[in-house]
Amino acid sequence: MELRTTTIERSTTADTDILDLSGDVEAFVNETGVREGWVMVFVPGSTGAVTTIEFESGAINDLKRAIEQIAPRDGEYEHNLRWGDGNGYSHVRAALMGPSLVLPISEGRVQTGTWQQIVLCDYDNRPRQRRIQLQVLGAP
Amino acid sequence: MELRTTTIERSTTADTDILDLSGDVEAFVNETGVREGWVMVFVPGSTGAVTTIEFESGAINDLKRAIEQIAPRDGEYEHNLRWGDGNGYSHVRAALMGPSLVLPISEGRVQTGTWQQIVLCDYDNRPRQRRIQLQVLGAP
Amino acid sequence: MELRTTTIERSTTADTDILDLSGDVEAFVNETGVREGWVMVFVPGSTGAVTTIEFESGAINDLKRAIEQIAPRDGEYEHNLRWGDGNGYSHVRAALMGPSLVLPISEGRVQTGTWQQIVLCDYDNRPRQRRIQLQVLGAP
Repeated sequence: MELRTTTIERSTTADTDILDLSGDVEAFVNETGVREGWVMVFVPGSTGAVTTIEFESGAINDLKRAIEQIAPRDGEYEHNLRWGDGNGYSHVRAALMGPSLVLPISEGRVQTGTWQQIVLCDYDNRPRQRRIQLQVLGAP
Repeated sequence: MELRTTTIERSTTADTDILDLSGDVEAFVNETGVREGWVMVFVPGSTGAVTTIEFESGAINDLKRAIEQIAPRDGEYEHNLRWGDGNGYSHVRAALMGPSLVLPISEGRVQTGTWQQIVLCDYDNRPRQRRIQLQVLGAP
Repeated sequence: MELRTTTIERSTTADTDILDLSGDVEAFVNETGVREGWVMVFVPGSTGAVTTIEFESGAINDLKRAIEQIAPRDGEYEHNLRWGDGNGYSHVRAALMGPSLVLPISEGRVQTGTWQQIVLCDYDNRPRQRRIQLQVLGAP
């Protein structure tokens, strides 16, 4: 049982950017040679989150609209009053969704479904250069 | 430290079916003989999710009602306009809740509370035959 | 690869208490000597949850307000009608957020960002003495 770590970088936009990380995760799992194990996808920072969804623009826009209703960008936030950075909504969204996801690897493959992609949700209100951590735990 | 995997199957209904998986998870943990470790519960597919809740019909119905307000079944979804399968709400619900849960095992027992059950939330709009993956990581 | 477990205790208030656990998690990681690994934070019970957020009172209050809109304390809950304990909202909130969080450790440090703290969200409607489980998996 070994642990292998890598970091991937992604540039994001200022407006709830949802990016498909599945290819990067699969590539890293292949590189490690792990056949049975777990992979963790983690975004450092308090305005990003990780989940899975069918990565097609309809579902992505639907998710964006739902999260906009839960924590509207133009709502009133104490965080904004205090810090003036205008991303109070980003913190609420990220805390509700969570920064970490652990998925099973079996027979060398991440066990997501065909229409289930691993996504980074960047909720910040400015473009970011995100560093996402991938860690594979398992045996070759 | 070893990894053991199994799959359990469950038939679900077409209307936000929430099922108690705790017995299956406990049985598999016992079967592995792991005393200290972790267990992962994962549902492949982008219309299912996993969490914990007190499994009594009141709390289950309350959760269903809350998630119906967050992503109403009869709302407008771009996913539906594009694909015509009517389960846009299912994708949003599943992405918000997440497909994976990792829980601690100690002294051979999953460390959930007495009134805390592990549940599959099937949000799809048609009956499914779900295959849920359980993975136990630990030492006997 | 070894697994180390500890429990921390925290007293909570009756009104959506959000507590910073980061110091406890870091201290336990240091104590284990694990350089590369994972740490799990888990709250037993169905009225608590774990996530990350920037731990400053503005963002914390914003999160409380958002979760109050999703599952209002004074809303109608079948759980309350059935059990009379008045914490139906607590169960819904906890199920939506989830009781468990797994984070990466690298070079001996939990890989959270500078303004990203690990928090317990206690949603119950009475003060609790919470026992939170921390488990570190990894190699020194």
